[in-house]
Amino acid sequence: MSLIVQKYGGTSMGSPERIREVARRVERFVKEGHQVVVVVSAMSGETNRLLALAKELNPDPDPRELDVIASTGEQVSIGLLALALHKLGVKAKSCTGFQVRILTDDAYSKARILSIDEENMRRDLATGHVVVVAGFQGIDAKGNITTLGRGGSDTTGVALAAALTADECQIYTDVDGVYTTDPRVCPDARRLDTITFEEMLELASLGSKVLQIRSVEFAGKYKVKLRVLSSFTDVNSTDMGTLITFEEDQNMEQAIISGIAFNRDEAKITVVGVPDRPGVAFAILGPVADANIEVDMIIQNASIEGMTDFSFTVHRNDFKRTMQILESNVKPAIGARAIVGDDKIAKVSLVGIGMRTHAGIASKMFRSLSEERINIQMISTSEIKTSVVVDEKYMELAVRVLHKAFELDKPATEERMKA
Amino acid sequence: MSLIVQKYGGTSMGSPERIREVARRVERFVKEGHQVVVVVSAMSGETNRLLALAKELNPDPDPRELDVIASTGEQVSIGLLALALHKLGVKAKSCTGFQVRILTDDAYSKARILSIDEENMRRDLATGHVVVVAGFQGIDAKGNITTLGRGGSDTTGVALAAALTADECQIYTDVDGVYTTDPRVCPDARRLDTITFEEMLELASLGSKVLQIRSVEFAGKYKVKLRVLSSFTDVNSTDMGTLITFEEDQNMEQAIISGIAFNRDEAKITVVGVPDRPGVAFAILGPVADANIEVDMIIQNASIEGMTDFSFTVHRNDFKRTMQILESNVKPAIGARAIVGDDKIAKVSLVGIGMRTHAGIASKMFRSLSEERINIQMISTSEIKTSVVVDEKYMELAVRVLHKAFELDKPATEERMKA
Repeated sequence: MSLIVQKYGGTSMGSPERIREVARRVERFVKEGHQVVVVVSAMSGETNRLLALAKELNPDPDPRELDVIASTGEQVSIGLLALALHKLGVKAKSCTGFQVRILTDDAYSKARILSIDEENMRRDLATGHVVVVAGFQGIDAKGNITTLGRGGSDTTGVALAAALTADECQIYTDVDGVYTTDPRVCPDARRLDTITFEEMLELASLGSKVLQIRSVEFAGKYKVKLRVLSSFTDVNSTDMGTLITFEEDQNMEQAIISGIAFNRDEAKITVVGVPDRPGVAFAILGPVADANIEVDMIIQNASIEGMTDFSFTVHRNDFKRTMQILESNVKPAIGARAIVGDDKIAKVSLVGIGMRTHAGIASKMFRSLSEERINIQMISTSEIKTSVVVDEKYMELAVRVLHKAFELDKPATEERMKA
Repeated sequence: MSLIVQKYGGTSMGSPERIREVARRVERFVKEGHQVVVVVSAMSGETNRLLALAKELNPDPDPRELDVIASTGEQVSIGLLALALHKLGVKAKSCTGFQVRILTDDAYSKARILSIDEENMRRDLATGHVVVVAGFQGIDAKGNITTLGRGGSDTTGVALAAALTADECQIYTDVDGVYTTDPRVCPDARRLDTITFEEMLELASLGSKVLQIRSVEFAGKYKVKLRVLSSFTDVNSTDMGTLITFEEDQNMEQAIISGIAFNRDEAKITVVGVPDRPGVAFAILGPVADANIEVDMIIQNASIEGMTDFSFTVHRNDFKRTMQILESNVKPAIGARAIVGDDKIAKVSLVGIGMRTHAGIASKMFRSLSEERINIQMISTSEIKTSVVVDEKYMELAVRVLHKAFELDKPATEERMKA
């Protein structure tokens, strides 16, 4: 007998018929002899409906009250799923965030989990119940209702799995696992049976929307075995989706490159003619950070005759604001020659844990792109990823070219693994 | 400065526009210098929507889970009203049942309030906040969410007023007070400025749907000054609806008859030819009570030659079941001659605290009805009401005849009061 935490998202819970499907899936695991804790999101559309109501009454709503309102979506879901399980003869009991006692900080709408009291859940599991827990929500030390922010139900699932030292945390979604890249962009994209935690982290942060990044971090921190599966396969399907493993794990299929992530949410900005002296990077990015603008890639080239150019990327929504800050504050202060920007760019990243021990990945990447005459505007590398910025109109082409060049359409073979 | 508890029902909270109206009304009282605790219901239609979803998943739903689901309606309302108040610049904070800590028993869907911790509310009031509390809900000793049943928000309002020893509990509804009878049945019906608690109790239990009976009982028990007002009047209207007073209160306008209640939800049943011996009433009503059927009027006439007839009324929905119980269990057991029933009846009741000290009310009632050739099938009296059962087709006529006979269309005058 295992203890399994399953998480079902809003699409999986989107209608009474879908909820009945979820109940049947849970029932299957119960019948196989497992103890099951289920974490659910609000029915799809519900959270948006509630937030729209709130915004209609107050365009600048207090986050405390937003959380009071938004958290009801999950509360309805737990009750409905418990009823659907009862209908199948499965013992089940619902639990809100405060009933479990999922203690968070008081950062409304983006709270972080501080601790989980697993006693209530253990007691209900011991009496043969499926415990159905509201995702996305918690309670702070003063008894205020908090939410973990969008996608927070994944985090709830992983956190409960960690607190209960569950054997596995299964994240059910509308895709059947993690792919080498987005199949809509590259039809040859292949489903991975396993992926390492670090790769998943890069793929998630770079725009693969399968899992929320915080939940992956959480899983890594607490070594929770995380599995991504589809809630749209047949209830009795033996397909086990993609398992997210940890680096320490041995004997696993290990390709050099696991996938290709991409992102067209960014804009690049270059400060031209920057004097190459200490403190300049801070003089540029300090005012940007003060304005709560997040910076992604940062590149500064070697200087020539005491002058250099300094480039970075920000979210496209922050592009104009960042340009203004640089023009009005930074440019005069450091005596830069010009500020130039471009918000029609895309970032394409090769991700792979094998990359760190294999030379030649970057050069193969650059050669493949150049053969298609795709100009590389910026480059940034880390141990397990290599990212390039290209004109956004070449993004799909770049993804497909790289997917083919690194043979991601083929299962990892001994040969490829050692390539 | 007074402390006022205001309760707004589902119709008053029915749309963002209506919620803004409520916020403006609350703001007015705050500006007048009062401390305000607001109790709200779910937006109209919301509870039914949620219960329909639940029933779709499980036609025989577990009441614990129903309460988890249904209680979200009020939780959304408190958040929305708090946001609407913020928009007007009014400090406000929402509170769910568990956050106030409204402790109830564990009778899901019809829980009773055991105690209220007013400390959290007092702290928020002290810092100048309007406290917006979710009606209809509470929490049991084990931390399960409970609801007080339909109309329970009135009870929440009164209970909070009692716990806080508020100066007044204002129940806002879609009518502007308590009328001498239903204006739809009798166009001459007149709004009362005051009514005693006992009269209100009779009017409520007899079918005037203005206030939920449990809330009135609660108000009487804790001597909460209760006022019924309309949330559809102008926000600055000085109309103060109907105040519900207590018998001890002196110097009040006091008519003999306050109003006429009516009810066509009942059916009458007569056990014919019952031996007049001890234990017979119990032999008849015991099996009925065992089946959880509530009995309203009970009439047993004096016996003639050791035999009598025994009549009572039940809710129309219980009519068939009651007839079956009597036919199969009671009739053979006590040797009654026959069981006859009629579910096409109506009950019409004169209610008035002055009645107890005035003779002739009943005879005037019977005379007025006989003049219109309305046959009286059953009669039952108490200290402050006289009820008759008539053929349901005469109900409206009976109400109008009595309303005129007792001059309820005219304000109480010294003369009428002493009549």
